[in-house]
Amino acid sequence: MTIPASHADLLEKPLFGHLGTVKADGGPQVTPVWFHWDGELLSFTTSTLRAKCKHMMRNPNVAFSVLDPAQPYRYLEVRGTVERIDPDPGADFFFELADVYGLKMGRADLDDIPYRVRVVVRPTHTTQQG
Amino acid sequence: MTIPASHADLLEKPLFGHLGTVKADGGPQVTPVWFHWDGELLSFTTSTLRAKCKHMMRNPNVAFSVLDPAQPYRYLEVRGTVERIDPDPGADFFFELADVYGLKMGRADLDDIPYRVRVVVRPTHTTQQG
Repeated sequence: MTIPASHADLLEKPLFGHLGTVKADGGPQVTPVWFHWDGELLSFTTSTLRAKCKHMMRNPNVAFSVLDPAQPYRYLEVRGTVERIDPDPGADFFFELADVYGLKMGRADLDDIPYRVRVVVRPTHTTQQG
Repeated sequence: MTIPASHADLLEKPLFGHLGTVKADGGPQVTPVWFHWDGELLSFTTSTLRAKCKHMMRNPNVAFSVLDPAQPYRYLEVRGTVERIDPDPGADFFFELADVYGLKMGRADLDDIPYRVRVVVRPTHTTQQG
């Protein structure tokens, strides 16, 4: 599975993606997310207190949609599988992403540090337009 | 079910939303969408040839996420149920939305006019931030 070169730039910028997970009742949830792409795997920061994390612990199938803000009819959808959920108890990955996305936030402002995790997703399929 | 007044403005602007549906295999799909909100129901334009439409014909549970471009930590997620899928064989609803979203497009440029539908969703739950 490779990301099409025509749309890979959308994973290399600090854009907001929308992450779809599946709830226990089989219905979808979609929420905006920061993400990190290393050329092979997509990572998201969340905490085990969050609904979307619980969904991914139960059902590893996810979908992720990102739109080009400069050309809104250009987008990439990545579907994939949660490969692992790594503890991020010091929230280092959260603050690494906060820095990339330009959010000024101190450790005292983040109330779920002990519950932070890094969700690592292996892409299995893409769709794109534009 | 009412949309919180604090976030209703996000449904009243021509923003791009991200619509989550559930595939036959139980995994999610997420794609960017135009939408129309009438104060009670959310509508989307699609065609019966599209995967997302097939998903909604099979599983009426959807989720929809919209982000405030002016304040990216402000967002609204609406979950809901497809109440009906109305034929839009002349693509009138498509062109109504195209006009709202400022897309200049002629009928000759739309190749799936006979298959267009208007998907009408009744919100059942919201989550929001910011």
